[in-house]
Amino acid sequence: MEIVGKQFIDGKRVAESGITFSSYDAATGEALPYTFFQASESEVRAATSAAFRAFGRYRNIPLEERALFLETIAAEIDALDDEFVRLVMRETGLPEARIRGERLRTTNQLRLFATVVRRGDFLGARIDTALPKREPLPRPDIRQYQVGVGPVAVFGASNFPLAFSVAGGDTASALAAGCPVVVKAHSGHSATAEMVGQAITRAVERSTLPAGVFGMVFGAGVGRALVLAPEIKAVGFTGSLPGGRALCDLAASRPDPIPVFAEMSSINPVILMPQALKARGAAIAAGLAGSVTLGAGQFCTNPGLVIGFQGEAFEEFAREFARAMESKPPAVMLNSGTLQSYLEGLARMESTPGVERCAAGPGETKRAHTCAFRADARLLSATGHPLEEEVFGPSTVLVALENLHELVQIVPTLNGQLTASLFAEEQELAGCGELLAALEHRVGRLILNDYPTGVEVCDAMVHGGPYPATSDSRGTSVGTLAIDRYLRPVCYQGYPDQLLPLPLQDANPLGLRRLVNGQWSEGPVPA
Amino acid sequence: MEIVGKQFIDGKRVAESGITFSSYDAATGEALPYTFFQASESEVRAATSAAFRAFGRYRNIPLEERALFLETIAAEIDALDDEFVRLVMRETGLPEARIRGERLRTTNQLRLFATVVRRGDFLGARIDTALPKREPLPRPDIRQYQVGVGPVAVFGASNFPLAFSVAGGDTASALAAGCPVVVKAHSGHSATAEMVGQAITRAVERSTLPAGVFGMVFGAGVGRALVLAPEIKAVGFTGSLPGGRALCDLAASRPDPIPVFAEMSSINPVILMPQALKARGAAIAAGLAGSVTLGAGQFCTNPGLVIGFQGEAFEEFAREFARAMESKPPAVMLNSGTLQSYLEGLARMESTPGVERCAAGPGETKRAHTCAFRADARLLSATGHPLEEEVFGPSTVLVALENLHELVQIVPTLNGQLTASLFAEEQELAGCGELLAALEHRVGRLILNDYPTGVEVCDAMVHGGPYPATSDSRGTSVGTLAIDRYLRPVCYQGYPDQLLPLPLQDANPLGLRRLVNGQWSEGPVPA
Repeated sequence: MEIVGKQFIDGKRVAESGITFSSYDAATGEALPYTFFQASESEVRAATSAAFRAFGRYRNIPLEERALFLETIAAEIDALDDEFVRLVMRETGLPEARIRGERLRTTNQLRLFATVVRRGDFLGARIDTALPKREPLPRPDIRQYQVGVGPVAVFGASNFPLAFSVAGGDTASALAAGCPVVVKAHSGHSATAEMVGQAITRAVERSTLPAGVFGMVFGAGVGRALVLAPEIKAVGFTGSLPGGRALCDLAASRPDPIPVFAEMSSINPVILMPQALKARGAAIAAGLAGSVTLGAGQFCTNPGLVIGFQGEAFEEFAREFARAMESKPPAVMLNSGTLQSYLEGLARMESTPGVERCAAGPGETKRAHTCAFRADARLLSATGHPLEEEVFGPSTVLVALENLHELVQIVPTLNGQLTASLFAEEQELAGCGELLAALEHRVGRLILNDYPTGVEVCDAMVHGGPYPATSDSRGTSVGTLAIDRYLRPVCYQGYPDQLLPLPLQDANPLGLRRLVNGQWSEGPVPA
Repeated sequence: MEIVGKQFIDGKRVAESGITFSSYDAATGEALPYTFFQASESEVRAATSAAFRAFGRYRNIPLEERALFLETIAAEIDALDDEFVRLVMRETGLPEARIRGERLRTTNQLRLFATVVRRGDFLGARIDTALPKREPLPRPDIRQYQVGVGPVAVFGASNFPLAFSVAGGDTASALAAGCPVVVKAHSGHSATAEMVGQAITRAVERSTLPAGVFGMVFGAGVGRALVLAPEIKAVGFTGSLPGGRALCDLAASRPDPIPVFAEMSSINPVILMPQALKARGAAIAAGLAGSVTLGAGQFCTNPGLVIGFQGEAFEEFAREFARAMESKPPAVMLNSGTLQSYLEGLARMESTPGVERCAAGPGETKRAHTCAFRADARLLSATGHPLEEEVFGPSTVLVALENLHELVQIVPTLNGQLTASLFAEEQELAGCGELLAALEHRVGRLILNDYPTGVEVCDAMVHGGPYPATSDSRGTSVGTLAIDRYLRPVCYQGYPDQLLPLPLQDANPLGLRRLVNGQWSEGPVPA
């Protein structure tokens, strides 16, 4: 295992700035024995230029090659040894089982995108054949498919050093779409990023693809140059609201604005119906405490707001939940900055009028203690959404409303969210129609009788939602639909068969399901 | 025919500002006998609030009702009488056949979106069923479909008073997606807008839909309030680059940025291969002159740049083309402002070093004369893209390059374009592979042996392209894929069948083609 610490540009490792920085042990804050070099602006441009040059060839390789490339990346990452796992653990403070699980999630995600590439429906082939005798004007032959938008800039998240980072969902979906990727390595796990970057580079070489298909730059502040680089045509980001919004504003300020898919801030409300609490309040309390504290609460789907209804069932639940939260040990966070932000978030909550702490777990230096608050329901509708400012860590806020009607009125005023969970018994679900309709307009994923943490990587997943959950509710950053963010349609009019891209040729050589003259068809174009 | 001139808000006609303006005869500049009222900011908000209230019900009506609504709008517009046609002719200066043709295009477009709504594949239903026994963790049941983003603001274009205006493609696709629409009436055809607005209002009433499904506001400067209204969730625009960019910047500045699909500026290069010119140069010259001058050149697909290769075939073509252009009569433009801009554009071209006028048609007061220029090929790569600044009107620029290789080098540096046309004989097409690959990355539609004017409304059409052709190359504003701009995915996790939206229920009651556990299926979910 060799950590070079230099930029990954067109298959070479380079560093011209001379500005260096370190990576740290998450638990102790101790510097690790690696040196990283801050990328210069010209290095960023070198990486994006290489990506653009690679785009010309990469977007046109056969789909099977593209799928094999994704699988080769997966194999290279799976082959990283125990030393790698220990390195990730040290840099992030996350336990071994989580790292191993997250690696499998990451490589299975790459493999899932390989199946998407092979299935080919992302190509969205549509064919309208010529109608030479139509009156008053003949119709020309027109054929449409989806192509990659161009090189994509990927900003990984601190909290998923593998699954939402260098080879995470944004990279996998962009590569699947035919777009080269330039990653801004997250400074919270620079060494992890380097090892994964090396794995991808080996896969590029084994697949004999142009080296510019993958690039990576290190260092603070390089994101600006990356988003402004003219060769970059879209951005994927997972992280904080201020960070994501800054990238959106930068992208919008370009001479040619580009789309940014930033997954940012969500408090993932959990709604507890009275009969569910009566029937299984203790189990819900235990499960919810587990969800709030899972991974030290460092998930974008962490339940940061628990909404119940006034009455004994909710009070009993609140007591159980407080006990469960207080039984949780303090946890190492991703880094000292994350811990500091968490403590500031708790202090902000405690100083908010109408908010009271109702549980606090045991503390320890350099670790995060669990915390729960009770808040006055009026704060849900208060200016500035004080209960919806994300406190990233193992804490949550409980609120008791008067009744379901009050909640239905409030939901449209809530910020956009990644998820909303509803715990309800069968007999009370019938009365939840209005609530579900309101929630559907404010969230990306509606969950019944389960916690929001745990995001399945599959075709049907939506990990998105209205602002500020994401910067564009029309995308998802988990699941196979994520590929759509990096595609654009193009059409050919009047071209002879042999000059058309394969997905559009008469014989349907790729065996695609295509919309031909308004009918779905898996066969050739009828003569 | 009664022109009220007030805002269309929640089924009522209101005007509180007292600020009035007129509509004008395009040919004479004379004011028409109608008074229009500038919308106040509170009226804009009243319209967007009504749209938001209507969204709750409208997005959940049965698909068949939604399709019938679109067809009812079409029927109401088709039923407008000859007086209406004369009104549009007067306001826009466009001839009768064009207006009647454009009306048919507009209503057929609405009917086409009705078939899209009935087909239901825009719902993008995806189902991953539960795997309760999966190790290490069970998979929950997850089901995804697409829902409307919310109320959409539509800014119509001056040059298509019907097909890209009040009931044009943006409105049709937004309504098809389940989104209410608030239109900013184009001040170039206020009375036309009013008549179409009345037709839509009648259709809303006949369909017993909430009145807020359609709103319209009049007046200069109201666009700002419309784009900033919190209820608006997306914007559709067709018009100038400065206008479109201003809306993009406004939308990006919102507390919650929203997507803008602005179709703005394109010069639609036409590439003439030598053998095609040898074989049929005169026909191409005549056809091209027809395309450049069609509708007084007031099309976003107007061919504003003609690229050939040095040699006698091109010179002969250029002479033919100049003759053809000079034989065209002067034409009434949409309004005096459009004519003024055209004349300024011609003056800018004439004063550009390296550009020479090579043809000018006969002139007449208040009418636009045709014009053609020859430009030094080096200007194609010059800073500021002087040949790519759109001159909206019946003019174009001819450029002769040395060879195909030079063109392949230049294409990636060109601005994004709606279209690129290639005229080539069969035997020279084989050498055009590199050119096509380069063009595919810069345009939305590649055309062979035909002119860019004439945009078929069908499933496969792409009327889009990289900036500045549009603000987001991932959309099209013509063709059925336009609906995707106004949709976002949402998923349900763990919900029982009867609480799921119809598109996601086990039995597949809508008969949709769905992605079920990674396989496309038109049947029920297997037990």
